Amino acid sequence: MVDSRRIKIEDMFDRLWPLPRSIAGQGFSDSLDIMAEMIPLKRLQYPTGTKVLDWHLPKIWEVRSAYFIGPNGKKYADFHKNNLHLVSYSVPFKGKMTLDELKPHLYTLPSLPKAIPYATSFFEERWGFCLNHEEYESLPEGEYEVVVDSVFKDGFFESGECVLPGESKDEILFSSYLCHPSMASNELSGPLVLAFLYEKIAAMKQRKYTYRFVLNAETVGTIAYLSKRGQELKQKVKAGYVLTCLGDQAPFNYKRSRQGNSLADQAALSVLKELDPSRQQYFVHDFDPSRGSEERQYCSPGYDLPVGSLMRSMYNDYKEYHSSLDNKDFISFDAMLANVDLYSKIVAALESNQIWVNLNPYGEPQLGRRNLYPNLNVRSHDVRRARATMWLLNLADGQHDLFQISERSQYPILLLADIAQTLKKEGLLVEASAKKQEAGSAKNLTVKS
Amino acid sequence: MVDSRRIKIEDMFDRLWPLPRSIAGQGFSDSLDIMAEMIPLKRLQYPTGTKVLDWHLPKIWEVRSAYFIGPNGKKYADFHKNNLHLVSYSVPFKGKMTLDELKPHLYTLPSLPKAIPYATSFFEERWGFCLNHEEYESLPEGEYEVVVDSVFKDGFFESGECVLPGESKDEILFSSYLCHPSMASNELSGPLVLAFLYEKIAAMKQRKYTYRFVLNAETVGTIAYLSKRGQELKQKVKAGYVLTCLGDQAPFNYKRSRQGNSLADQAALSVLKELDPSRQQYFVHDFDPSRGSEERQYCSPGYDLPVGSLMRSMYNDYKEYHSSLDNKDFISFDAMLANVDLYSKIVAALESNQIWVNLNPYGEPQLGRRNLYPNLNVRSHDVRRARATMWLLNLADGQHDLFQISERSQYPILLLADIAQTLKKEGLLVEASAKKQEAGSAKNLTVKS
Amino acid sequence: MVDSRRIKIEDMFDRLWPLPRSIAGQGFSDSLDIMAEMIPLKRLQYPTGTKVLDWHLPKIWEVRSAYFIGPNGKKYADFHKNNLHLVSYSVPFKGKMTLDELKPHLYTLPSLPKAIPYATSFFEERWGFCLNHEEYESLPEGEYEVVVDSVFKDGFFESGECVLPGESKDEILFSSYLCHPSMASNELSGPLVLAFLYEKIAAMKQRKYTYRFVLNAETVGTIAYLSKRGQELKQKVKAGYVLTCLGDQAPFNYKRSRQGNSLADQAALSVLKELDPSRQQYFVHDFDPSRGSEERQYCSPGYDLPVGSLMRSMYNDYKEYHSSLDNKDFISFDAMLANVDLYSKIVAALESNQIWVNLNPYGEPQLGRRNLYPNLNVRSHDVRRARATMWLLNLADGQHDLFQISERSQYPILLLADIAQTLKKEGLLVEASAKKQEAGSAKNLTVKS
Repeated sequence: MVDSRRIKIEDMFDRLWPLPRSIAGQGFSDSLDIMAEMIPLKRLQYPTGTKVLDWHLPKIWEVRSAYFIGPNGKKYADFHKNNLHLVSYSVPFKGKMTLDELKPHLYTLPSLPKAIPYATSFFEERWGFCLNHEEYESLPEGEYEVVVDSVFKDGFFESGECVLPGESKDEILFSSYLCHPSMASNELSGPLVLAFLYEKIAAMKQRKYTYRFVLNAETVGTIAYLSKRGQELKQKVKAGYVLTCLGDQAPFNYKRSRQGNSLADQAALSVLKELDPSRQQYFVHDFDPSRGSEERQYCSPGYDLPVGSLMRSMYNDYKEYHSSLDNKDFISFDAMLANVDLYSKIVAALESNQIWVNLNPYGEPQLGRRNLYPNLNVRSHDVRRARATMWLLNLADGQHDLFQISERSQYPILLLADIAQTLKKEGLLVEASAKKQEAGSAKNLTVKS
Repeated sequence: MVDSRRIKIEDMFDRLWPLPRSIAGQGFSDSLDIMAEMIPLKRLQYPTGTKVLDWHLPKIWEVRSAYFIGPNGKKYADFHKNNLHLVSYSVPFKGKMTLDELKPHLYTLPSLPKAIPYATSFFEERWGFCLNHEEYESLPEGEYEVVVDSVFKDGFFESGECVLPGESKDEILFSSYLCHPSMASNELSGPLVLAFLYEKIAAMKQRKYTYRFVLNAETVGTIAYLSKRGQELKQKVKAGYVLTCLGDQAPFNYKRSRQGNSLADQAALSVLKELDPSRQQYFVHDFDPSRGSEERQYCSPGYDLPVGSLMRSMYNDYKEYHSSLDNKDFISFDAMLANVDLYSKIVAALESNQIWVNLNPYGEPQLGRRNLYPNLNVRSHDVRRARATMWLLNLADGQHDLFQISERSQYPILLLADIAQTLKKEGLLVEASAKKQEAGSAKNLTVKS
Repeated sequence: MVDSRRIKIEDMFDRLWPLPRSIAGQGFSDSLDIMAEMIPLKRLQYPTGTKVLDWHLPKIWEVRSAYFIGPNGKKYADFHKNNLHLVSYSVPFKGKMTLDELKPHLYTLPSLPKAIPYATSFFEERWGFCLNHEEYESLPEGEYEVVVDSVFKDGFFESGECVLPGESKDEILFSSYLCHPSMASNELSGPLVLAFLYEKIAAMKQRKYTYRFVLNAETVGTIAYLSKRGQELKQKVKAGYVLTCLGDQAPFNYKRSRQGNSLADQAALSVLKELDPSRQQYFVHDFDPSRGSEERQYCSPGYDLPVGSLMRSMYNDYKEYHSSLDNKDFISFDAMLANVDLYSKIVAALESNQIWVNLNPYGEPQLGRRNLYPNLNVRSHDVRRARATMWLLNLADGQHDLFQISERSQYPILLLADIAQTLKKEGLLVEASAKKQEAGSAKNLTVKS
């Protein structure tokens, strides 16, 4: 059986991979164009040189060519062979020098001698090359010719944004970034999961929440985006997630939002718990503003948005991170699609969450008469659904939402939500909001009479 | 030495055991009569066919005879030999059928081949027999003659209730049920412990609390009782316990009230902790509305009464549960009387709980001068009582009751209560309520002057 | 290298050791005189016979000589050889008696047969001798001559007190006691650490807090002191510590204040945590009013001061406690000076604690441009300070003080405080109090205009 999503995701990956992305410029823009084939992205632009929040947007950086040639005539660190070879935002340079003079400009990972590191210098003028440590060790003494043919020019930083409306203006945010050249899990996995997740949410017949999908450059781009949308997001976002590090098959890592137990955190953890009730196969991390991705901006104290991040192998923690080894061999497209499905479950959990009110709160309602409880009582009966029903009725006091009832009862939220629909049809439960409205109109009537 | 309680409890058990109890009817009524020999029970009645809260009370069910006769002429599952043989509330049936036709009406416990299961079908019209799996396996092929000579008639559901007044209208509730035929620990242990506990509490010279003792049919009967008394209990009950599963010698199981750390929970746990400071020999369970007994009704969200349950082997968790093996061999009358004493200790803890106010809160009072502290200070002195005294004085700030002081200091509440009386005599402590009244009259005086 | 503190502390110890200290009188007064060479102590006096809080101050007790002579002519338990030999506050006695008549007046520690116990009887008239168990066992039968030549007279109880002013009237309290004869760790270590800590705090160029240093007799003296200063301390003391059991090299024990997590507790624990991040080498004890030292008075419910105690081997827990084995051999002067340094770190932590407000709370500020973040981003960079900076900025929301930020981020408070100063210079942070004032004056301006 051919899975068309499996073919499509690899195709997207292969087209995005070679583009010379950076925080702005042609590579970023071309990548957004490809993403827009799946998500109808609106483009936001921020002129270089302007101030966004506390940051000054630097110029656009483009590279015509970059390499160095050894005394043996060999060409090293050719940007056109691998765009990781050049430190991002390297300033132009042409000249000759000895190996000793060149070495301070070379970056390697001695502990991973076959990997090219990924290095950036966005805000300090310097040039440099990244190469694997084995090659570095083999460089002969002698005179080197260095070429960094880069240019800086005015232009625009960009974000891509798409909003899928729902019944409520309350929003769920999914954000990812698109600024790293040739990184697989710690870059392309994020936008790709975002695109396939968009596809699923767009296909939903009904959406309680409005969904916002955002693609930025990490850090400076997120800050530019927040300079335009920050106050709006502060009003609207009820839960959000940064999509990154979603390429491999390692156990899940969930990083909590700054709020600590926000709706985003409860939804993600309820899905992980259902997947793995023994809680052996995933890790939960408290919020940490000193490492990570865009959540550092979304969760800055002025915004303090309920934004977490569900990942596989987490930034900094896997050896291939920020090196040429974070490539197509490292990732699994099946895992990426499984991650899409996992985020879909989080969406389903969020959509089904609700505060219910038991309309017969005095004693248990007679479930047997409604065929909601086995009418023959004998040992070893399978009564899982009946027991979940009793939990739901007992805690449906207008104080607990389904996430809390799920946490206390250990029954999955989707089972509880399904039972709630049954009980609603039976006239045993009503949504707290409906109950409130009813109380409201009753009061109005009283006032009028 | 003959223990008259030991003789009496076994005698009561032997008389109650054979009565064909169900949720209403002659067996239930006769059982209440026997209980009334020890507790002066008031009877509450609810006519069949009426609605109590969300439930419809079914008719009274009585059985004249029930059995089936095999092709070998043998009589099987004779109700008169063991009233567990007939599924409770079986509808009348007379007829002949093959073994294959009969089998869907037969219930066994393959994992306990010598046990007859206990089965009920109160709200669905069916008939059925329960028998041990060995006998079931030995049934010969051929024609069977089936007789279920049962009748349904109008009448009354009943509760038995007794209230022992105390100084305060605040109540402690003890509730148990009396509707299972021939079950020892998961039935008769409850009413019997209730009766002997009543005897002890009735003999107390002074009662701070009012005590209410209730006997219902489980579930539907408790609901009928709450339809009459629910709102009153909601006002009055400060702590309550469902008495069930008190027949064997297994380690204790305490099931918390829905409130989680109510006065009932604190009192029960303080007694268990004193009994077993290492906390090795008992188990504490969070409230669970999906299993258990009458607390499911008392702790329904509309009432949310502070009602827990202290048990030995807990329903569902012991293999003999709801089968003919939960019989006189399974239980121990000595254990039952020990359980009475344990509940008495809970009563003593509740009675002695109090908020005390230290009248010399600045620095320690001079205990030595009052002979409350060793006046020779040398190492290895036994100062347990003196140390508990210091804890009590330090936390007697009008904010902590004795349960909280016991929890923080690890000294038993009864020791603390005893010390409090000493300190009161010395003029060092006063009850918070007395302090308040005093403050009140002082204020009045000020106002008057 | 000669450490002058090391020489001085041993000299002070040697001079204080032989003085016949008790809760009042010449020995106490002479000891205060020696302490006053290092701390300019103000003396507070309380006449004997008066009532302080709930206590009656007993008379001054002085001993001219005390011993007993055996039938063998040997002199035993000579007070002039070791002032532990006489039970403190022994009443005068002269007479002859048999060994059997003498024995009820003799105190020993059978489990430590070479140690003389320390015993007191301040409030009950008795006389007694303490001796080592070996000597006790060797006492011959026969007639003994007993001499207790003690006198009781009117006079004064005393406290020594010194206040070092700071910018704020809020106070940090250090208290110790000076009433045990010939006890090294459980007595002299306290006053000596207090004196050297005073020296350090007096030398500070700037003090945010006012510091109060107090020397009392334990219990009754502390109560006398509180009778004069209690209400003032209740207003002013923000954190305090009782200095005792600071003589040996054992792992630290910290006893929390009654409040449980007061500023005193947070400061002490933050320093211990920095010293020993694995938390293996120190113990934290909840407040216990039934054992301990002056904190029993400071933390009595009427005052409830935030006073804890950081100790080495803790009273009652080491075998040498309250015996002649708690002597110069048991202690280490280097450890005592290390304890001075540890308390200095607590002072530094308290002084540096502050609530900061991030002036750019929307997104991260651009740290690279301010040289606060590595401007080359490549793996394995040492970014400890940068990461602590990000934590501080993220939690500097006016709700968290540095102790809370340290607890959540696991970075030491002194590092965070140092970073805060840098960020303040950069205009990124401001003290919450300054922010408030600013808001206040802005409001005033608005009102005026």
